Amino acid sequence: MRIGIDIGGTKTAAIAVADNGSFGEPLRRATGFGARAVLDSAEASVRALAERAGLDVSAFTSIGVGIPGAVDNANGVVSHAVNLGVSELALGRELGDRVGVPVRVENDVKAAALGAHQLSIDGATASGELLGGSMAYLNLGTGLAAGIVQNGVLLRGATGTAGEIGHLPMDPRGVLCGCGQVGCLETVASGSAITRMWPSDAEYPVLELFELAAAGDAAALAVQRTFFEGVAAGVRALVLTVDVDRVVIGGGLSAIGEPLLRGVRGVLADWSVSSPFLASLALAERVRLIPIGFPAAAFGAALVGVK
Amino acid sequence: MRIGIDIGGTKTAAIAVADNGSFGEPLRRATGFGARAVLDSAEASVRALAERAGLDVSAFTSIGVGIPGAVDNANGVVSHAVNLGVSELALGRELGDRVGVPVRVENDVKAAALGAHQLSIDGATASGELLGGSMAYLNLGTGLAAGIVQNGVLLRGATGTAGEIGHLPMDPRGVLCGCGQVGCLETVASGSAITRMWPSDAEYPVLELFELAAAGDAAALAVQRTFFEGVAAGVRALVLTVDVDRVVIGGGLSAIGEPLLRGVRGVLADWSVSSPFLASLALAERVRLIPIGFPAAAFGAALVGVK
Repeated sequence: MRIGIDIGGTKTAAIAVADNGSFGEPLRRATGFGARAVLDSAEASVRALAERAGLDVSAFTSIGVGIPGAVDNANGVVSHAVNLGVSELALGRELGDRVGVPVRVENDVKAAALGAHQLSIDGATASGELLGGSMAYLNLGTGLAAGIVQNGVLLRGATGTAGEIGHLPMDPRGVLCGCGQVGCLETVASGSAITRMWPSDAEYPVLELFELAAAGDAAALAVQRTFFEGVAAGVRALVLTVDVDRVVIGGGLSAIGEPLLRGVRGVLADWSVSSPFLASLALAERVRLIPIGFPAAAFGAALVGVK
Repeated sequence: MRIGIDIGGTKTAAIAVADNGSFGEPLRRATGFGARAVLDSAEASVRALAERAGLDVSAFTSIGVGIPGAVDNANGVVSHAVNLGVSELALGRELGDRVGVPVRVENDVKAAALGAHQLSIDGATASGELLGGSMAYLNLGTGLAAGIVQNGVLLRGATGTAGEIGHLPMDPRGVLCGCGQVGCLETVASGSAITRMWPSDAEYPVLELFELAAAGDAAALAVQRTFFEGVAAGVRALVLTVDVDRVVIGGGLSAIGEPLLRGVRGVLADWSVSSPFLASLALAERVRLIPIGFPAAAFGAALVGVK
């Protein structure tokens, strides 16, 4: 059994994955703020999983952690995890020392890409579908980023920057991005983008946006279209660079479900009408949604260093 | 000895590459128009190389051909090579039947990427420089496209579309691209873009543009800046997706030499001032120019299927 932990900005989710890939309901707890508190919540997750399984912590083969920020995969150090209040933390070594089990660390989107890829293999095996050679996981969370898997291997790149398509500028007259550039994809195709484009007191502004758009509200339809176009541009960028067989949309906003998939495919279909070149790439057919509720990052984290 | 052939829109260049990687002066001849004429020029190139070497054609181990258009690498079929008047041609089989030597076919930019990569290995070995794991070859010709080499292997992608960054739109208010989209990178960062942005009766409009810009002409400087920004955007797109160690600029426009490299690095440096994120990626340091006159596509074509 291996442990996979997904440390998010608000929640830490942890699962124990058996050798056959099966896992139980994720254990969730609030993520602490700051390096010490993040470590504490990770350690507590490990001990709670062991207790639930009736095992000693040492019974687990390895622990994998997915965490936002820049991760040095070789030495398990995470840095610039701003939302967690972590400037630098030797998470692999420190958590390993606390629990006595080897710990591997990966960026959360890259871990989720591994998890989504493994899920697609399992699904393809079950359905008899032929396996594609490559996949991108397009994470629509507070920000926008992708993880790329080629021949079953996660693409990290020279500096861990592979898949950071959220900071591809697409409009010189767009808004200023937090990265200092103008008109980045993330400024139209992310949770933070919707918060900015659709200011609202509703408990779930995204749901309100989609409900009003479904009811034909012109302002909501315009914002929704901008969002869909941004996600579609992300799909296009992934195909025109790495030419992946599949783009799997995940992250918090993927919980929108079918209306999201339909909207993105609709934009790609519209583009194909005016561009035979884009039509030849069959972009809409490459897009998938991650199953709602699938703990891609925790599952993928358990696979880091194994797959 | 292997033969490498680069079939371009106007010229066909061919070299014989020895097992140690050395090769002589390329043989050049006009490329015919249409499938039959393209085949004839390729066959004539092979026979001329053999004659120059005083060998029978059967003395060559293999022939590799780089050609514009969509290439099915597995069966040697090229299609949609519009500039050559070729809608579909089983180039590998037909040329192989004519000369009795196995023929492999690859898209010309992808072949050039292999050639540039091998050159960088040889150069690094000679200089003792550490080898990076990945490289993109950014071809500035009539159009704009890139070839990506990861761990010494050419990235083709699911449908041969990997590296087609010339059709990444970057400005919704840009001009209509031949592909049917608006504001593609190719509409600002290519030979055809300069022809459009700098209409001129000069024999070499690009040289005129750079000479006038060097003399401080405001209109020339503005066009040149747009061009540099487009190339820089191509470099950024390659790093934010595949995160290559090096981007090597090649193609016809790379003959501009140092002023091109300086201009692109200057834009990347300017962007880094306003974006700490981009600054952290050290984009300017990743850019190189292919040595002027190096026959990257012919050299790389000789390596197709070997490397």
